[in-house]
Amino acid sequence: MTFGEIAQRRLHEIAACSQAGDGVTRLPFTPEHRAALDQIRGWMEAAGLQVHMDAAATLIGRYAGPEGSKTLLIGSHQDSVPGGGRYDGIMGIALACLALEKIRRDGHAPACSVEVLAFADEEGVRFPTALLGPRVLAGTFDAAALALPDRDGVTLGAALAGFGGDPARLEALRRDPSDVLGYLEVHIEQGPVLERRGAAVGVVTGICGIERNAIRFAGETGHAGTVPMADRRDALVAASRFIAAVSEQAGQTNSIRATVGSISVHPDAVNAIPDRADFPLEVRSVSDQARQGFTEEMRALGNRIAGDAGLSFEMTRTYVQPAVSCDPELSAALVAAVEQGGAAAVTLPSGATHDASAMSDLCPIAMLFLRCRGGLSHHPDEYASAADMGAALDALVHVLMSSGPGQ
Amino acid sequence: MTFGEIAQRRLHEIAACSQAGDGVTRLPFTPEHRAALDQIRGWMEAAGLQVHMDAAATLIGRYAGPEGSKTLLIGSHQDSVPGGGRYDGIMGIALACLALEKIRRDGHAPACSVEVLAFADEEGVRFPTALLGPRVLAGTFDAAALALPDRDGVTLGAALAGFGGDPARLEALRRDPSDVLGYLEVHIEQGPVLERRGAAVGVVTGICGIERNAIRFAGETGHAGTVPMADRRDALVAASRFIAAVSEQAGQTNSIRATVGSISVHPDAVNAIPDRADFPLEVRSVSDQARQGFTEEMRALGNRIAGDAGLSFEMTRTYVQPAVSCDPELSAALVAAVEQGGAAAVTLPSGATHDASAMSDLCPIAMLFLRCRGGLSHHPDEYASAADMGAALDALVHVLMSSGPGQ
Repeated sequence: MTFGEIAQRRLHEIAACSQAGDGVTRLPFTPEHRAALDQIRGWMEAAGLQVHMDAAATLIGRYAGPEGSKTLLIGSHQDSVPGGGRYDGIMGIALACLALEKIRRDGHAPACSVEVLAFADEEGVRFPTALLGPRVLAGTFDAAALALPDRDGVTLGAALAGFGGDPARLEALRRDPSDVLGYLEVHIEQGPVLERRGAAVGVVTGICGIERNAIRFAGETGHAGTVPMADRRDALVAASRFIAAVSEQAGQTNSIRATVGSISVHPDAVNAIPDRADFPLEVRSVSDQARQGFTEEMRALGNRIAGDAGLSFEMTRTYVQPAVSCDPELSAALVAAVEQGGAAAVTLPSGATHDASAMSDLCPIAMLFLRCRGGLSHHPDEYASAADMGAALDALVHVLMSSGPGQ
Repeated sequence: MTFGEIAQRRLHEIAACSQAGDGVTRLPFTPEHRAALDQIRGWMEAAGLQVHMDAAATLIGRYAGPEGSKTLLIGSHQDSVPGGGRYDGIMGIALACLALEKIRRDGHAPACSVEVLAFADEEGVRFPTALLGPRVLAGTFDAAALALPDRDGVTLGAALAGFGGDPARLEALRRDPSDVLGYLEVHIEQGPVLERRGAAVGVVTGICGIERNAIRFAGETGHAGTVPMADRRDALVAASRFIAAVSEQAGQTNSIRATVGSISVHPDAVNAIPDRADFPLEVRSVSDQARQGFTEEMRALGNRIAGDAGLSFEMTRTYVQPAVSCDPELSAALVAAVEQGGAAAVTLPSGATHDASAMSDLCPIAMLFLRCRGGLSHHPDEYASAADMGAALDALVHVLMSSGPGQ
């Protein structure tokens, strides 16, 4: 049995740590979380790691490297979305454990200290917050979040304490950046790029910044039968021109992903000209500058379209999250490891947020993406092949054995 | 006091026949309807008409012209939408009565027999049907509609009988087309055309045919962050291209009014690419041929937009109502009457349905539109001026006195 096949079997087994229903539903600080940590502890012990759970309920398996060596952190999250898949998050933990197990079986040793981190909550499904584990390590966790309740009224602090964590000791978990080499995360791509390029794995260039804008075109309503076309100030027609142009202009860049995922019109009747069209515009880019430039272009475009048709245009930023760059040196080590296989490594941005986003406040980060079938994620049919997981594992082993990560 | 001012006063008075609340709310077969008919009876009697209510609750005031003369019908509806205005429908009845009153006061007489018709229910608000009165006269009323209930479970038949009508005698009301010269209706425009052209009145060329189509673009959903623009099959982007193009192409015709008044997308999340966009397309034209031609062009356009982007496109006709032409001879008499004032008569289509639509199954029809402020209708602020009503009244008098209507 190959290591990729072992990974596949382990991910199949741990998928049973789930609430009933289609797919995997494993929320933080639940019996399912507990059962999953029991299995992960087994994976860590099989790799010869020293295991403990920290006060934030992150399960940590440590390999102590040469005296005085810094520590390379490798991790991802144990939790899933409701009805999610078998790979999102948990695969990164499984492959990190197996890479260390393989190194040990082969009679080798990593070039530095290594810790595998199984974070409790990345998806933010149970509580209206997320990324507790990495934020605590980076010292960016806001203790006010401990008072946030789940839908049953149980606070994050109470759930954490009930699970064996310790809200009072979170601050003490903050790591000293000078002891940490960096943070590596292996994750399924959750998109179609690697599959379409025929690559098992790809190295992430950065994690996209995100901004959301609330947009309103406002014109004048009227009877669909009695107002001639030339006399209309139709908010949906203006919004349509805008949405089509946003898509076209984003498509002419390499760096922008722009999406309108929702729209509503008023008065919303088959025979009434819309006087309002409201929709969110989400823009993502690994370059904050490119994102801001694009958004400003779109604002000018919206004003132009509205002005031409005698409408008003409002665009209000409702959310912004800056991009996170992956560390050039750590990423170069991943690229070198991938290119062991011969072909040039594919590089791609991450459009989604990961534990690595929060870890970037502590240390250099890098990410390796795995091809997933059909780009599908957050779905019971989410799938990565044993062969692709084997390729990712080989790359991890190469990085751990090399002097790549800054030793 | 001018006749226009008398009309204004009468419309002010009859507006009190309304349910409580903003604007006029007068539904058929209600105490408000009864109170309104009492006032209309007074208007008819002041014009020297013989008054009776028929079995369909249409109040009819008859002037018997020269022995053997055919009858010119003039009418509109007494009912309103909820929270409607003081002019829609009822103004046509008031002006017809006043025109005959003026002719009588001036010591003249119409050139033919004339009946003023105050129909019970044109708006179709209380029951899921409408146009009882004119359909009965034309012989197109479907008796099955008598069983349709209002929201309190009272059927149309029961409401009519309770009001003094007679469901069993509706068939007997059918008119012999050879006895009828035609049907004239004066109505507020309910649109902005006359106001923008600076005309008090306009002659209607025809009543638009209407079709509605249910449209769906279907593509593929995906995460707004992880799917590059070039790999998307975004249903809302395709729908936006389509909606913008429909508006543009309708604007290049003189004859088409095309409207998308509503839209929904799936899965309808800020960070999910829409895989479905559903919306209705309503197309109106006085030319059924132009309407059908336009709709087929839009179908081809939708297929092209969908095909270019790898989506599917469905367009299903859900409703169709053919256009009604106004009678050239009767309309020419209206044009001649309007042009008495000196300026060339404005002609325009009716985008909305009227009692005249149903009367066209019985006899030639013609309509005179009045300018209404801001094109506003179905609203408490609906307004037509006394001067404009005076101009319409003068035109009616001219038609009634002339040999215009086919005598």
